Amino acid sequence: MATLGFIGLGIMGKPMAGHLLAAGHTLHVHNRSLGAVRELGAKGARGCANAKEVAQQADIIFLMLPDTPDVALVLFGPDGVAEGLSPGKTVVDMSSISPVETKEFALRLAERKVEMLDAPVSGGQVGAEQANLTIMVGGKEAVFQQVRPLFETLGKNITLVGGNGAGQTAKVANQIIVALTIEAVGEALLFAAKAGADPAKVRQALMGGFAQSRILEVHGERMIKRTFNPGFRIRLHQKDLNLALTAARQLSLSLPNTATAQELFNAVAADGGGELDHSAMVQALERLARHTVG
Amino acid sequence: MATLGFIGLGIMGKPMAGHLLAAGHTLHVHNRSLGAVRELGAKGARGCANAKEVAQQADIIFLMLPDTPDVALVLFGPDGVAEGLSPGKTVVDMSSISPVETKEFALRLAERKVEMLDAPVSGGQVGAEQANLTIMVGGKEAVFQQVRPLFETLGKNITLVGGNGAGQTAKVANQIIVALTIEAVGEALLFAAKAGADPAKVRQALMGGFAQSRILEVHGERMIKRTFNPGFRIRLHQKDLNLALTAARQLSLSLPNTATAQELFNAVAADGGGELDHSAMVQALERLARHTVG
Repeated sequence: MATLGFIGLGIMGKPMAGHLLAAGHTLHVHNRSLGAVRELGAKGARGCANAKEVAQQADIIFLMLPDTPDVALVLFGPDGVAEGLSPGKTVVDMSSISPVETKEFALRLAERKVEMLDAPVSGGQVGAEQANLTIMVGGKEAVFQQVRPLFETLGKNITLVGGNGAGQTAKVANQIIVALTIEAVGEALLFAAKAGADPAKVRQALMGGFAQSRILEVHGERMIKRTFNPGFRIRLHQKDLNLALTAARQLSLSLPNTATAQELFNAVAADGGGELDHSAMVQALERLARHTVG
Repeated sequence: MATLGFIGLGIMGKPMAGHLLAAGHTLHVHNRSLGAVRELGAKGARGCANAKEVAQQADIIFLMLPDTPDVALVLFGPDGVAEGLSPGKTVVDMSSISPVETKEFALRLAERKVEMLDAPVSGGQVGAEQANLTIMVGGKEAVFQQVRPLFETLGKNITLVGGNGAGQTAKVANQIIVALTIEAVGEALLFAAKAGADPAKVRQALMGGFAQSRILEVHGERMIKRTFNPGFRIRLHQKDLNLALTAARQLSLSLPNTATAQELFNAVAADGGGELDHSAMVQALERLARHTVG
């Protein structure tokens, strides 16, 4: 069995590292705060002082970090992964970060004869804990096949989308569709409510036709029942739409409704709702209309 | 069996009237152009010179007309339905028109002791021909129960959404969600293509998660395979979003992404694409980005 490393033991990373450990792998871990390191240490993980040390010890190094600058720093900053790498090792970045910069990172690692996969996930904390994450992978087929058994201890719906960056691209595409479908359901149910119809009956009438979606089913119901406890936090979806809009500018691409959805998230966050479930985006539309869905 | 009337024998109305006729009902019909009247006449329908005559002969009068002004004219114009009505009769408007004006029409008919149901459909020409339309109904429960067996000869997914206008409201909500989900899938697949990933693989990776929808499945594939033959024409979806935006202004309601979706339809129509399937909305995004999904 390959010796593994895991850097970033937050609400996603900690249970994921735990599954790799439970599968019997030797696991070297590093995290900014030490609580999670001690917790995994009690289950057999080996704590490292920094990312460089993890890279020295492990053959395959997993990252699960909040955002693009965090990944850049952990890979190429002082005492970072790059300083500890040697040819033949593999970096697997499961963070959700910029697809454009991911390609740059892969090129810089390739110069050191180190392979990289980008492998962002969807499914959230529950998916991480229950090991049924959706994993969208970018990189070489051979590297993907090598790491695949490890992905299978973390998730279920595992797809090699394309070369380096394609996993991050798929994740951004996913977050665009989810945000814009929430916005669509919000406009439709608010229209129904303000026109005097019962949004619950409208949702029911629409479920069997072309308006059908997981979002209408799950998030539509949350809007009607006013259950905005996360779920997936607006603050995190703002980060993802920022990735979409930043990459769109770099790629010369216009995403008009993604821009509007981000502004609506911003408006809910401005009102203190950044920690609410993303279905609470409807609150921004509701304030404009002085009327609520539920 | 009640004596029925049917006004408006277009690509939707003609097959619908045919199903009522085939179920054994006496059917009085009227249509602006006479071809469809003669066609149904050969199957036993009785042609009438105008809408007034249909209303004089029939107990339940169905309408299937293009837009709000057509319904207003046929109901209340010269030689219109209102002139032929008597207390106890029922008007069933299956056109897709303004929910706000529908409530007005119902009030004006109620003054004559005539009941009205609004009962717009989704499912298009194929649904009309195969009698599996989705029917969204507004009106009184007792009237709905009376007409329900007739709806069952026309469609399958039949819902009483609420009082007068609620059927039209549900239909508008449906068309908002469909248009905005097409837009969402368009932004996401174009993002993927421009970032260098394979949109077909991205679509596949996203189908199992929260981005899942009938639109991603059906219209996403059309965008990738460039099969923009209708389906549902942009020209008709423009009409429906116009209903949404007009009603939103009347109701003091802001629908930002519906407005953008309409502008994108307008742009495709300006380029000669009004008769294409509504999934061709992606072409407007593609022109802005000078790049295509497929």
